[in-house]
Amino acid sequence: MYIVHVHIHVKAADIEAFRAATIENARNSRQEPGVVRFDFLQQSEDPARFTLVEVYRAPEDADKHKETAHYLTWRETVADMMAEPRVGVKYSNIHPVDAEW
Amino acid sequence: MYIVHVHIHVKAADIEAFRAATIENARNSRQEPGVVRFDFLQQSEDPARFTLVEVYRAPEDADKHKETAHYLTWRETVADMMAEPRVGVKYSNIHPVDAEW
Repeated sequence: MYIVHVHIHVKAADIEAFRAATIENARNSRQEPGVVRFDFLQQSEDPARFTLVEVYRAPEDADKHKETAHYLTWRETVADMMAEPRVGVKYSNIHPVDAEW
Repeated sequence: MYIVHVHIHVKAADIEAFRAATIENARNSRQEPGVVRFDFLQQSEDPARFTLVEVYRAPEDADKHKETAHYLTWRETVADMMAEPRVGVKYSNIHPVDAEW
């Protein structure tokens, strides 16, 4: 799997609007054929910090995701909500292996 | 869900031994009734850095995990492999909601 954890820090005033926009994006992203997981998480100790756990079958699927209408809408909607630039960290899965996802 | 991302930086010489010990721990942890996911990931840009994505039904399930023989064995096996103390970050899931995991 091609896995990206996107760490996002939003302005305190934008937490609720960011949640709403990102739920919509996550809901649509999960319907993409190359998306295995698209989990939207909120940090327990700092509710202004979020992580997207994005699991794609292959790197091309991440590229396709970035061309979807829902991603482009999300990107524009949340652009001014960022407290700092978001950071993506790439991973591969060791366990479970691909067939078990 | 009660979610913990554990970020682990190991000494370069211990990467293979750490992988083997942690695959064994992940395999057993996934059998625990309170464990929804236990994903063992390796960073693409720095193979000495790993993340465990631990998803429990409730905080008590994380406590129970730490009492299992496989966790205690793992903790002891990897203790001297750490390049720095590991860091756990707690999350709750926004989407998908609990019923969809």
